Amino acid sequence: MSPATVQIERPTPVNGVNVAALFEVIDAVKANSEIARFNFRLTNKWLGGVRTRSTVKEFTGALQTHRAAAKGFVVETGEPPVLLGEDTAPNPGEWLLHSLVSCLTTTIVYHAAARGIAIAGIESRIDGDIDLRGFLGLAPDVRKGYSAVRVHLRVKTDAEAATIENLATYSPMLEVVSGSVPVSLKIETY
Amino acid sequence: MSPATVQIERPTPVNGVNVAALFEVIDAVKANSEIARFNFRLTNKWLGGVRTRSTVKEFTGALQTHRAAAKGFVVETGEPPVLLGEDTAPNPGEWLLHSLVSCLTTTIVYHAAARGIAIAGIESRIDGDIDLRGFLGLAPDVRKGYSAVRVHLRVKTDAEAATIENLATYSPMLEVVSGSVPVSLKIETY
Repeated sequence: MSPATVQIERPTPVNGVNVAALFEVIDAVKANSEIARFNFRLTNKWLGGVRTRSTVKEFTGALQTHRAAAKGFVVETGEPPVLLGEDTAPNPGEWLLHSLVSCLTTTIVYHAAARGIAIAGIESRIDGDIDLRGFLGLAPDVRKGYSAVRVHLRVKTDAEAATIENLATYSPMLEVVSGSVPVSLKIETY
Repeated sequence: MSPATVQIERPTPVNGVNVAALFEVIDAVKANSEIARFNFRLTNKWLGGVRTRSTVKEFTGALQTHRAAAKGFVVETGEPPVLLGEDTAPNPGEWLLHSLVSCLTTTIVYHAAARGIAIAGIESRIDGDIDLRGFLGLAPDVRKGYSAVRVHLRVKTDAEAATIENLATYSPMLEVVSGSVPVSLKIETY
């Protein structure tokens, strides 16, 4: 920055989120909606038995390809012995819960930052019911996937639980999962 | 096994799956459907900024709690710089794709094993479109989550692609995601 540049007042990062950058993203998207278009992707390879490995690398967004030169994240799935695996990694159903609960948490943090709501901590638990008869094809009336998912978030903040709950409704993965499975979302502030 | 025990002929493992054990599970579930009831769960903690960490440990299934004494799997989520993170781990949307594609692969492998269909390899790619205007609350008519997901699986097998596609439809996470998002599933055998 040259000495002649006007110093714009930038909000302090809130919740560890660079709020100035967040508003820059919002303004850029408002000016050109193409910037908002993201495409996430990965490749997966069967490792034999009930194990798989994904490589998570490039994605597209804000009119660019990102992480193209990165090594990428290499992550696996396994199954526990009761499902005939060797418990080498979480299974696909557990990864879905990880996706959903982390999306809820991150969504609350971004949207709270944008509104200047300080969050001091979030801890959560999530669980989901699956009746294996659906997967095994033993009962056509039984769902194959989760029949119910429950999330309980404890958020350390001065804001009301209802305010935090409203922020959580922006969660992309909540929309994906709750469009298909009943998701009970309990948010407690302290 | 005592010398007097009759040696039961057990099918050779198919695709690395212990088929005898798989049929034991199926028979047990047929005899008592309570055995089929599973509950998967995990805890998550916000790490500041847009990072979270999950601990995946015990689950319930087949009338027991499993992994209670295990250390558990510790997995994170992050966000790339364009989404204000430091790219420390895949983001929640990427984890959802990992869940779905690994579930499809594992489902094909289990069901092929049960039918005696040999699979020599599975490689796949998956991608999904997200328009950030939904998440940012800038366009109420734009979805917050994925608007479309595409999966392409290449399966090395003598079976027909249509047969493999039928096996894939048993995937629990396919049911969860496709109940909410259009999922295009392309399966190729070679």
